[in-house]
This record gives sequence, C-alpha cells and structure tokens, in this order.
Amino acid sequence: MSKEIPYKIYLEETEMPKQWYNVRADMKNKPAPLLNPATHQPMTIDELSTVFCRELAEQELNTTDPYIDIPQEILDFYKMYRPSPLVRAYCLEKALGTPAKIYYKFEGNNTSGSHKLNSAIAQAYYAKKQGLKGVTTETGAGQWGTALSMACAYLGLDCKVYMVKVSYEQKPFRREVMRTYGADVTPSPSNTTNIGRQILEKFPGTTGSLGCAISEAVEVAVGTEGYRYVLGSVLSQVLLHQSVIGLEAMAACDKYDIKPDMIIGCAGGGSNLGGLISPFMGRKLRGEADYEFIAVEPASCPSLTRGKYAYDFCDTGRVCPLAKMYTLGSGFIPSANHAGGLRYHGMSSVVSQLYDDGLITARSVEQTSVFKAAEQFARVEGILPAPESSHAIKVAIDEALKCKETGEEKTILFGLTGTGYFDMVAYQKYNDGEMSDYIPTDEEIAKSLAQLPVVE
Amino acid sequence: MSKEIPYKIYLEETEMPKQWYNVRADMKNKPAPLLNPATHQPMTIDELSTVFCRELAEQELNTTDPYIDIPQEILDFYKMYRPSPLVRAYCLEKALGTPAKIYYKFEGNNTSGSHKLNSAIAQAYYAKKQGLKGVTTETGAGQWGTALSMACAYLGLDCKVYMVKVSYEQKPFRREVMRTYGADVTPSPSNTTNIGRQILEKFPGTTGSLGCAISEAVEVAVGTEGYRYVLGSVLSQVLLHQSVIGLEAMAACDKYDIKPDMIIGCAGGGSNLGGLISPFMGRKLRGEADYEFIAVEPASCPSLTRGKYAYDFCDTGRVCPLAKMYTLGSGFIPSANHAGGLRYHGMSSVVSQLYDDGLITARSVEQTSVFKAAEQFARVEGILPAPESSHAIKVAIDEALKCKETGEEKTILFGLTGTGYFDMVAYQKYNDGEMSDYIPTDEEIAKSLAQLPVVE
Repeated sequence: MSKEIPYKIYLEETEMPKQWYNVRADMKNKPAPLLNPATHQPMTIDELSTVFCRELAEQELNTTDPYIDIPQEILDFYKMYRPSPLVRAYCLEKALGTPAKIYYKFEGNNTSGSHKLNSAIAQAYYAKKQGLKGVTTETGAGQWGTALSMACAYLGLDCKVYMVKVSYEQKPFRREVMRTYGADVTPSPSNTTNIGRQILEKFPGTTGSLGCAISEAVEVAVGTEGYRYVLGSVLSQVLLHQSVIGLEAMAACDKYDIKPDMIIGCAGGGSNLGGLISPFMGRKLRGEADYEFIAVEPASCPSLTRGKYAYDFCDTGRVCPLAKMYTLGSGFIPSANHAGGLRYHGMSSVVSQLYDDGLITARSVEQTSVFKAAEQFARVEGILPAPESSHAIKVAIDEALKCKETGEEKTILFGLTGTGYFDMVAYQKYNDGEMSDYIPTDEEIAKSLAQLPVVE
Repeated sequence: MSKEIPYKIYLEETEMPKQWYNVRADMKNKPAPLLNPATHQPMTIDELSTVFCRELAEQELNTTDPYIDIPQEILDFYKMYRPSPLVRAYCLEKALGTPAKIYYKFEGNNTSGSHKLNSAIAQAYYAKKQGLKGVTTETGAGQWGTALSMACAYLGLDCKVYMVKVSYEQKPFRREVMRTYGADVTPSPSNTTNIGRQILEKFPGTTGSLGCAISEAVEVAVGTEGYRYVLGSVLSQVLLHQSVIGLEAMAACDKYDIKPDMIIGCAGGGSNLGGLISPFMGRKLRGEADYEFIAVEPASCPSLTRGKYAYDFCDTGRVCPLAKMYTLGSGFIPSANHAGGLRYHGMSSVVSQLYDDGLITARSVEQTSVFKAAEQFARVEGILPAPESSHAIKVAIDEALKCKETGEEKTILFGLTGTGYFDMVAYQKYNDGEMSDYIPTDEEIAKSLAQLPVVE
C-alpha cells in the first residue's frame, strides 16, 4: 500500500492546512485559566484585550472550538515559506546502523531560521486588522524578534523589540537582521521605560534578563496609543498557530502511510512541541491512534522534569497574568553557561496539563551531549541545527540506538525547529572543548520555588 | 493550457535531472583551452591530473559530450537538499506594481547557504572514488569552503581549507561552521607552506589575499601524497556540475508552461550564472528557443564590462594554468570597501566565450544600489539574500520596473544563489548609512591589464 517515500516530502499547496487545530477542544482536563495577578480571578476578554489585540485574546480563551480558520492573508504568507519539508533521515539512520525509521519536520528554511514565524505572522496580522500601528515584544536568543520583524515588514506594521542587552551585544548579527527588516531594536534594560530606568539605577551595568525585557515591552505596549504586546511562546494562542507544523506533518505521514510510534520535540516555553504534537495528540485524545510523546528540555532549565505544577508569574517582573504551569519559579535564571534558548522558567499551560495527565513524557539532557548530537546530525544530514532543536535530535538518536539494540523498527518523528547560523559562538565553545554542563541543585530550585505566589 | 502556478515549484524526486548538461558541446565557438604556463601549450589530461583528480580533469577537457551521467552517490546527496524551489515572486511583483512575472531559483536552502554545494559534492565524490585521502582549497567569503567541508564530512574525506586571513578573523562564524564539519581551517598566509612563509617574511602583518590562499592550497595538494586541489568556480567542470540549477529550473518552467524572456544571474567567476543559463543557452544555440541572458557583476570588479578577453593567470600567485577569459588582470584587487564575493579578476572561459559571441549581455551595478534591492527583496519575499545574489535581484527589479513603464508582461527568471546570514557586517554598514561605492578608474584597470602574460 505504501508509496516509495522521498527524502523530503513537500505537500502540494492544495494539501496545506486551511485551519489551525486547537487541542484544548479535545482535552478532557482543560488547562487552568490565566488569573489576574491582583484579584486572582480568571482574566476576562476585556482585561486581556488591553495587552493583546482582541482576536488574539479570544483565541487565548477559546478552549472549545477544535478548528479555527486561518485567514487568507496568513495562508498567502505561509505559502512564501511553507509547506516545510518532512524529511526522512536516511543518512542518519545509516550512520547509526539502526532499524528505526527517523523523520524530522524541518522548520528552519526561512530567514527567521525557525518555526517562530508561524505565530509571528498571525499575531502581526491580527494587530494590523485591528488597525493598530505597531507591536512590542522582547527577544532573548533572537529567533522570535527576527520572525516578528519579518512579519511586521511584510504587513507594514511598526515593530519595537526589546533585546536582552547581553544578546544585543553578543549577537550583533541577529540585531542587524531585525534592523534590515525595519525593526526598532533596543537593548534592555533601557532608558526608554520606567521599569528600565529603575533597573538601571538599582543595578548599574546589568546585562539584562528576559524578564526585564518583557516588562519593558509590556510597559510600552500598554502606554502607547495603537500598540499591543506580542509573545512568541507559552501562550495557548501561540500553540494554536504552531499547530500548522503538526497538521502538515500529519498530512504528510497520512499521504505516505507513515505511522510514527513516537514524536519528539524540544521544549522551552512549548511553542514548537505543542504545535508539532497537537494534531497527533487530538487523535490520541479521541482514541483514534496512539503515540508516545517526548518533551526534551535542557538539564539546566528542567521545568517539566524538576519543576512544580502551580500558578506562577509568566515574567520575572511579575506584571503579567498568572498561569498554572510546570515552573521552576519566575525568579529562576538558568546558568550563564547554558547556550541557546529553552531558558524559560515555566511551560505552556496546555503542555503542562497534558504532561500532568500522563499524556506526554519528558526528559532532560545535558548540553555537551546535545552539541555532540548536533554535530553528528550536521555531518550526515547536512543541516546545521539550532542548539534548541538539537535537544530533540539527541533523544531521537538515543531512541534509534535503543532500536538497534532491540531490533525494533520503530518510526520516530522529531521536530527540527531551526538552524544554528547565529549560534556559532556556542558551536565554537563545543569545537574548542570549552563547553561544560551545569545542573541546578535541589536547593537552588527549592529556593526559587519558595517564591511562588500563593493562589487559593 | 497552463496550470495554476504555486508560489514555490518543487520538482518530484523522479523529475530531478540524472545527467549534467555540458553547454560546450553545443557551442560553435568552443572556449579556448587551458594553457601550460611554462610552455603555453594546451594542458594535457596528464598534466591536469597532477592537480585535479582524473575524472574531473577529463570533465575539464570535455567539450563534446552534451550530457554526463551524475553518479548515483551524488544523486543521493542532491536529494538531501534538492530540488531547490523555483519561486514565483508574487509579493515582489505586487510591491513593484509591475505587470512582469518574476521567478527566482533559490539555492540557499542548505547549510552551506549557497549553490556551491552542487559542485563541492561532485568534486569530493570523484576524489573519494579515486582513493584520495583528502582535498585542499582556498576560501574567501567562505561559501565555497563551507560547502566543501559539508561534502567532505559526508564522504569521510579530509578537507584542508586556506581561508584568507582577513576573512578568518572577521568571519569567525564561517570558520566555526567549517570546523563543525570537521575541516582543518588555516588562516592564509600561514607558516604551513613555502609560499606562505615567503609572503609572511616579505609582508609581515599582511591580511592575505585569495591569490595567496590559492597558491598555498595548490602547494599542499601537489606536495602531499593522496591529495588534490579543488576550486569552487571559474572551471568548466564547475559549470558542468552547476548545470543542475538550470536543468531543474528548465524542468519546472516546462512543467508549468513558463517561458522566460530573460534570465539573470550574478557573475563572479561564473559558476552560478553558467549553471543557471547553460540548459537554456543550449536551446538557444540549437535554435529551439530564444532568451535574453544578463550577467550582473559589481561595478568594483567589472571583468566582463570593462575587462579584456585574453589569456591570463587564474591566480595571483601565477602558479595555475593560463585561461582565456575576460579579465582585469591577475593582479587586480577590488576595493576593500566591496562587500561579499564576486571579487575574482577573471571570468569562466565558457561564460567569456558566450559573452564574446554576443549571446550574453552584461551589466555592472554599484553596491549601495545592490543592498537597497536586497533590503526591498528581504522585506517582501522573506528571504535575506546574500550580497552576491542581490546583484541579480537589483537588475531583476530594474527590468520589472521597465515593464511597469512599458506595460510589457515579460517573464523574468533570476538566480538567487544564497543567503546572507554571514554577511551581516555588510548589512550593518548599509543600515548605518556607512556603505559607499567604489568604481576603479580606467588607469587602475589599464595598469593591471598591462601585466597580462604574452601568449603568441
């Protein structure tokens, strides 16, 4: 029955998804609602609409509609860089000598270099549709800021990016890509906001943090006529947009009669993992199929494997709503030696609930083993992977080697979220043997978790 | 008759070319032969085989066979990143308000970031097949060195890259990508060769040149058991391998009944231009169709538009064979303010002969106008183009705007050779308004041409 499977499966344009899939509709246990940080009451649509544009606020709260139409303008933009290929890793399989069949959904073939563009264009589109002038955001490693800059350039929307100062200085090329796309990039903390000025006064010479950059971006969005704040992960709306990854992957699998046994994704805030697994999870939740889902997180920031399922602040500055999630505490800062993204203290509420329900398993991996897997993958499959994506590669290789031992011909699907062109400093450290691992102690995590807000 | 044309046309694997096309077979006036620099007699296969591996030397001298089978191992490697898409630039057309139809063949979706991989894998394959241990090469901007490193890693071949010292220091990330693929990267001039030591003694503190790096790479190849030298452009064998670009583009055009009126490519040594246009030129030479071909070169290194058609050395060190080509003289060095590649003093013998026969036209463009076109393209089409590729974008936009004036619905096809991720220093200069143009004076060119070798 099965057709010969090409190295890379590209869907036809006519086969591309026309709707996003909202996994919350099929979840028996819905993710807990966002709470107002002052009242501890569920955030209303009106409250959320002061920060996010209206249609996105509605998507954030929508736990019932399984499918949401993708507007034509977004479909047109998707056609510029989608469908992304589902690649059969023939060369990696051969190098490993495994009977397993390995596939990866590669999201790096666009200038932003990652899957982030899938949600960036959606969020920018709704902002434009609402007649807004612009959006604000923060960026750490820079993938999200780049994606948003591209989307805003395409739509003619103003884009203000607060970039963590240490990244701004250490990743000047990321900054220049954003500027080439017309974005206004400010190193954070900055003198352009109250919170920035306060932090600079209190900690002169600080190189910034994601939490601080979020606070500045939110302050500017709320305080500027015609602006809203946008975020590249964690939120349920982001997972909704990212479901395009999983929908395409599933359509490609169905077309060629590929039946994955396990689906593996790296997990920071959960945007890629959630997007990749959602439609497959829907089948599992509806009893139509079964899959093993594996979330892979860095050992240096292990929210699922060592965090607590509790309400917490989404940002270090504690200005955002409270979300129930697996968290290490909003004050948790991963070790400075940790390369790449996946540094967020918490995890998407959707992913957290699925994990708590035992529908997803999780593993944490150390970064030197991740870069070793990245190098092995690069040499045989050609693509230079982002450090984030390489977490999934590491576990895919581990599982393929297990199959080699047992002789099982499992089908492994993993998400290759992006490319590592702007991460060569980390690769250099690895190449020079100067990369090390850091695992937070139980005491460190307990100390951070002791600061969780008390929610009755 | 014509089907609806998708944004991106991907051929099926079964539609991918199985043979390279050798345009020399259809040329009435063959390109002039390479000459031995000492005797000024045509290079024999045996002479060439001391520098290149045997099968490549044969390809270099083959002016009669129109098609050469692509070995299965290379076809398998091509499947990892090919077919490359033929993209309809709907968004650019809309932004320009032109009735022209614009297509581009995008070669940047592989980790080397450019079309160079098409020939790198071929050259590495034949070296491996001949039982060699490794290959040596030089790299300036780094695209070729990266591509060759990837190909060698895949085949388990040793790869020694001499990287112009100024690039080695200014483009550390390019260097790290090569190291990640296991290449041995040496800044040139170096102490590892006689010529390097001589140059360092004569010019202490020099930052190197492509000519010096070529000399070092050739010295090591000729002097080391089991090694050969490989080159990423200029040679006829390289154009042969790069014909895969044009063959795919032509197959995609034929499939959707697209009839290009003009085909535009950037031209440094001619590898991309030659590869893209070859199969279309074949049709023109055989009287089956007509196209306008436009070579675009930088105003700072204008070999076609201001050079002389004469025998010249292929390298500044004058150790390589003589080639008849449009040249600015082997001692010509483009201004330091010129960003990106396309810095070679001469032009492929094949392209030169076609140009001399009036079958190709040429234009030179200034770099600030090139970056302006690059930015415009990036903002609407998403892809961040390499500076080299942007020369073709500039002329494609010029031609599309002419169509806007005249109302003509011309079909424009151009080659988008690669991405600009490692060229952000140049983009930054452009973003900061610090980029300038330099056009060599007639006196400078005359002075360089005065040093041409005398060939009877």
